[in-house]
Amino acid sequence: MPMDRPKVVIVGAGFGGLSAAQALRRSDADITVIDRQNHHCFQPLLYQVATAALSPADVAWPIRHILRSQRNATVLMAEVTGIDAEKKVLHTGAAGDIPYDYLVLATGAMHSYFGHDAWAPFAPGLKRIEDATRIRRSILIAFERAEIATDRDEQRRLLTFVIVGGGATGVEMAGAIAEVAGQTLAADFRRIDPRSSHIILIEAGPRLLPSFPPELSDYVRTTLTQAGVEVKTDTMVTACDANGVDTNAGRIDAATVIWAAGVTASPAAQWLHAEADRAGRVKINPDLSVPGHPDIHVIGDTAAISDAAGKLVPGIAPAAKQMGHYVGKLIVARMAGRRVDTPFRYMHLGELATIGRRAAVVKFGRLELRGFIGWLFWSLAHIYFLIGLRNRFIVAFTWFWDYLTFQRGARLITNPPREM
Amino acid sequence: MPMDRPKVVIVGAGFGGLSAAQALRRSDADITVIDRQNHHCFQPLLYQVATAALSPADVAWPIRHILRSQRNATVLMAEVTGIDAEKKVLHTGAAGDIPYDYLVLATGAMHSYFGHDAWAPFAPGLKRIEDATRIRRSILIAFERAEIATDRDEQRRLLTFVIVGGGATGVEMAGAIAEVAGQTLAADFRRIDPRSSHIILIEAGPRLLPSFPPELSDYVRTTLTQAGVEVKTDTMVTACDANGVDTNAGRIDAATVIWAAGVTASPAAQWLHAEADRAGRVKINPDLSVPGHPDIHVIGDTAAISDAAGKLVPGIAPAAKQMGHYVGKLIVARMAGRRVDTPFRYMHLGELATIGRRAAVVKFGRLELRGFIGWLFWSLAHIYFLIGLRNRFIVAFTWFWDYLTFQRGARLITNPPREM
Repeated sequence: MPMDRPKVVIVGAGFGGLSAAQALRRSDADITVIDRQNHHCFQPLLYQVATAALSPADVAWPIRHILRSQRNATVLMAEVTGIDAEKKVLHTGAAGDIPYDYLVLATGAMHSYFGHDAWAPFAPGLKRIEDATRIRRSILIAFERAEIATDRDEQRRLLTFVIVGGGATGVEMAGAIAEVAGQTLAADFRRIDPRSSHIILIEAGPRLLPSFPPELSDYVRTTLTQAGVEVKTDTMVTACDANGVDTNAGRIDAATVIWAAGVTASPAAQWLHAEADRAGRVKINPDLSVPGHPDIHVIGDTAAISDAAGKLVPGIAPAAKQMGHYVGKLIVARMAGRRVDTPFRYMHLGELATIGRRAAVVKFGRLELRGFIGWLFWSLAHIYFLIGLRNRFIVAFTWFWDYLTFQRGARLITNPPREM
Repeated sequence: MPMDRPKVVIVGAGFGGLSAAQALRRSDADITVIDRQNHHCFQPLLYQVATAALSPADVAWPIRHILRSQRNATVLMAEVTGIDAEKKVLHTGAAGDIPYDYLVLATGAMHSYFGHDAWAPFAPGLKRIEDATRIRRSILIAFERAEIATDRDEQRRLLTFVIVGGGATGVEMAGAIAEVAGQTLAADFRRIDPRSSHIILIEAGPRLLPSFPPELSDYVRTTLTQAGVEVKTDTMVTACDANGVDTNAGRIDAATVIWAAGVTASPAAQWLHAEADRAGRVKINPDLSVPGHPDIHVIGDTAAISDAAGKLVPGIAPAAKQMGHYVGKLIVARMAGRRVDTPFRYMHLGELATIGRRAAVVKFGRLELRGFIGWLFWSLAHIYFLIGLRNRFIVAFTWFWDYLTFQRGARLITNPPREM
């Protein structure tokens, strides 16, 4: 290829990064997509890996396979270590220094413990495939240990599952664990009754799913409670340790604590020495460029930008996709020498969350769905947005099968601790 | 349950242990099945996990789920630490001491480096799910690193894959890696051509698959060679290190070395202070009991016993199943106070191995199959013997899909080394 093709470097192959790369498909740019993983992970279904319903490969797809037919895109598996914005060079570990003309940072977010990083080993969050298999291992091992335990208190602690955070991930995890305990495992043990498990969902605010209308929050609470989940709103976790959590409403002994309470952005702001908001997101211009760096754009969960109404654009997949598409088209226009004056406009399509078997809540504009219809809508939407025809088939088949049998096919404990 | 029900303890839930438990299904015994994993692993398809065709959960199934409807069986996840044959007690880590009336040891085998355990980190074998995901990671990371590498020699080393051992596992791994390099990944890279990979299968003896008839060995060699595998028979590995292997025919630089050359039995003989053969297998009586311990039976890969013709019973799934069934029935008879004089009789059904897409060899009695027909037979046999209807569906669908698309759906690098 001639040397004068503009170089676009995209860091992160989540929803935002992939959309940006795909928007540049027909451009004359040389595109390099860099990710520290080899796969794009479909995060909305990660909780199903964590609860043994799906296999990791069902919700992940190799990045280079997604982009295989886009001949102007090269995928490199490497970790970013810094950016030299003056020299327009990205520093990476394995792939060395990579020069760019346009840089897109789509590096996402990690879970955050609000300054209490010491809690991380006791309360894993759910962002990557490895997090999901780790949580799956904790949940399944808790039941295995309870079957062996002879002490009643210890058994009770092992069969107590605390989920911190009442957003979509927390609600979905709580609903799924209730199904695992109440149905999937019900007949598999001899000494314990998995149905006697305690599943406790803790939310600091006054209601679950605060971004949904209050009547849907109420519905979610009622449905979860009927499924055997104890919902504790207005409850703050004040400490986490190996044996449970302390809250402002008292101590809960639990072998498994799952963190779904907050996220913090990737270190993009630090690489750029740019201004960030409290969650670490880079404050960007209306065209998603970094102030002072018109050739660097930040998109997705690591970007802080407000919509037309002044509300912060939420950290969800559709927002990241819209930003990626906008930036890809913007770079195409700039390369063609066109000025772009249209700012990024976020279009909020809606939100959805599932509570478990046959129950979900959906809010799309004026459309509000719940119950079985909501669940059908949720299932179809997630299958539609999954990448790869093969994954769609496998996931659809698995859900259908599990729906009929109450089973979960990926009840695998891998890399168990020595002598559990 | 009354205290006087006989206690049967079965260690290991592979093909042998599960068969023994199932043969005791209608007995009055209290059966305890102990395994350090929570899952039964279908080892014949493990190489497909290692080469990204199947997900771990497709070839593994929770032991307690398999035995869920057998009400007299309890499953405990724990590791055996020793046996007190005088007091008839099994020592375990997590589950403490477990008394038994009858003990069945079905603890299998691990790969063996013939005294060179130092080679293990450089040349992983393939026995457990974790081994398979580890090998999958090595193979996929080698391609990722080659795409990044700038040095030609380093690229060549990264794209060289050595498989040590020309038995069924070695042949299957070599054929599958040839497909990954030649078809699956062919269009996914920009800087390297995966089709230029070197796949080298090393066998110390004069021919591949020595237990098959020579004409099938020749066919396998020809087919592998056509698929791009370099087959080196009469070649011994003399050393393994991080950068490749030394052989009596010279040095091979390779980033990925896979060990399929030999197995050693579990430590059952040490627990029992019993006589073992060179591979560590317990030498047992014709009724599979341990000399001096009529209440302890050893079955499967960890047992050394000869068939009617004086030939050692091979370490394959059907042999383990037959032994498990025999011992289960023997214990039922003993519990009923009947003497059993019929020794174990191994019935050799046959052997089969696949070389890859549309090619396999089958030897069943006088029946010899090869090529596409052999491959169909191989596929149907493996789907038939898989545990769980769900797994059968998923695996059949996956094979059909991959057959049509040349793809592999589980190309997932999990837990990559930091800064690869």
